[in-house]
Amino acid sequence: MTVRAQKVWEEVDTVAGYITYINLVRPLIGDKTVVSTGMRQEIDRCREVVKLALDGHSVALVSSGDAGIYGMAGILIECLQEAGCLDLPLEIIPGVTAANAAASQLGAPLMHDFAVISLSDLLTPLEVILKRARLAAEGDFVLAIYNPKSKGRQGQIEEIRKLLLEIRSPETPVGIVREALRGELPQVTISTLEEFTRLPIDMLTTVIIGSSQTRVIGSYMVTPRGYIL
Amino acid sequence: MTVRAQKVWEEVDTVAGYITYINLVRPLIGDKTVVSTGMRQEIDRCREVVKLALDGHSVALVSSGDAGIYGMAGILIECLQEAGCLDLPLEIIPGVTAANAAASQLGAPLMHDFAVISLSDLLTPLEVILKRARLAAEGDFVLAIYNPKSKGRQGQIEEIRKLLLEIRSPETPVGIVREALRGELPQVTISTLEEFTRLPIDMLTTVIIGSSQTRVIGSYMVTPRGYIL
Ligand SMILES: C[S@@+](CC[C@H](N)C(=O)[O-])C[C@H]1O[C@@H](n2cnc3c(N)ncnc32)[C@H](O)[C@@H]1O
Ligand SMILES: C[S@@+](CC[C@H](N)C(=O)[O-])C[C@H]1O[C@@H](n2cnc3c(N)ncnc32)[C@H](O)[C@@H]1O
Repeated sequence: MTVRAQKVWEEVDTVAGYITYINLVRPLIGDKTVVSTGMRQEIDRCREVVKLALDGHSVALVSSGDAGIYGMAGILIECLQEAGCLDLPLEIIPGVTAANAAASQLGAPLMHDFAVISLSDLLTPLEVILKRARLAAEGDFVLAIYNPKSKGRQGQIEEIRKLLLEIRSPETPVGIVREALRGELPQVTISTLEEFTRLPIDMLTTVIIGSSQTRVIGSYMVTPRGYIL
Repeated sequence: MTVRAQKVWEEVDTVAGYITYINLVRPLIGDKTVVSTGMRQEIDRCREVVKLALDGHSVALVSSGDAGIYGMAGILIECLQEAGCLDLPLEIIPGVTAANAAASQLGAPLMHDFAVISLSDLLTPLEVILKRARLAAEGDFVLAIYNPKSKGRQGQIEEIRKLLLEIRSPETPVGIVREALRGELPQVTISTLEEFTRLPIDMLTTVIIGSSQTRVIGSYMVTPRGYIL
């Protein structure tokens, strides 16, 4: 959490968000009004926030990681537009997104150009996701993969693996990080493109697939920036 | 700055880093030993940090944004390897990288898949950079561009613009953010792919080029995640 995010609680009277995230910040909230909703109710949650703001409340909307990366910031702006109140004051507080959090646990896999891809096909057709992964691989980007797997969606990550094996070496390092920086000890594994889908991967996991330059140095996964030592 | 980064000062006796960044955190440093070096001396700086650590010091190495994104984390690990001391304890504290900081000032341009590219050709041949930009554009990624221009390097961003105009509409929103979240007021502009290179861009600027889905909503630049309102 950033220092700014930690201070914002002093300036709001209401806190909204997905109940799991609200619980993570519960000690900071004190006795403010809490408006919490379930997982797939992002739009309802944002509409509620807009209504509260129009009623004169000062509301903090909690998002995990960075609110601007597959988070709540965009939906909230669309809801402000929908309600015809784009002039309401809005501060978007940036945060540490899962790619950066995961990278810090692995070493330094994102020291060179990288692409961030979500495998959630709720909102993006699978063909588009696979095309993007292929082009990113052809460009030798490191890949940071969000939403790699959920209960209803197990096969995508295997398709990504097969597709990348056509372009990159089976020995390419792949980092898997679960529950980074959430308080409990994160699970961190460095595997290879050949093997990584045999490891447990779920929706609390970020997967970082190395470029042709990525190496394992001791216990670290590193993509050298090109500095020659 | 994260809460963790703010607390680390209590645990170290020495602080190392590029002088400009040291000055940004000067109030937090107190009377600790400071080892500062000039801009292009990253490797010397890391070697010095390793030497100090081997002498029993506890050292904080300051990096801007996130140390793992074109920052100091990777070089430091390479220097630990060079000195044969990969077993020294190392904590990489993740931060808010420039893409996230810039995005928060623009609205929500990174709500969907994006690619991060540095235009610094000190370490990467220009052909590789341009190939990457083309593939990312073909994949309809939003592009976050670091190191867009320096004194000795003015033309790349114009080449990127021309290349992208072959693939994306001239009306594609482009966000330009200078000195985000550094204390002073950042300069934030939303322009278009057609026009943006006429605006002032320097090495303290991050440029975010929208995908085919990116729109301007009021004063915000937004790439909708796909939610239908
Ligand atoms: C809907 S996205 C939200 C991302 C979030 N806004 C951010 O910036 O990190 C959810 C995905 O982010 C990744 N993620 C979120 N928190 C994580 C954590 N603590 N450790 C590892 N991955 C995480 C996982 O890939 C997860 O499926
Ligand atoms: C060598 S990279 C370092 C990036 C840094 N480690 C990070 O994670 O943000 C330097 C580039 O980052 C971007 N940058 C760094 N700080 C910035 C800021 N405050 N506002 C906008 N862009 C910034 C600029 O594109 C700059 O040329």
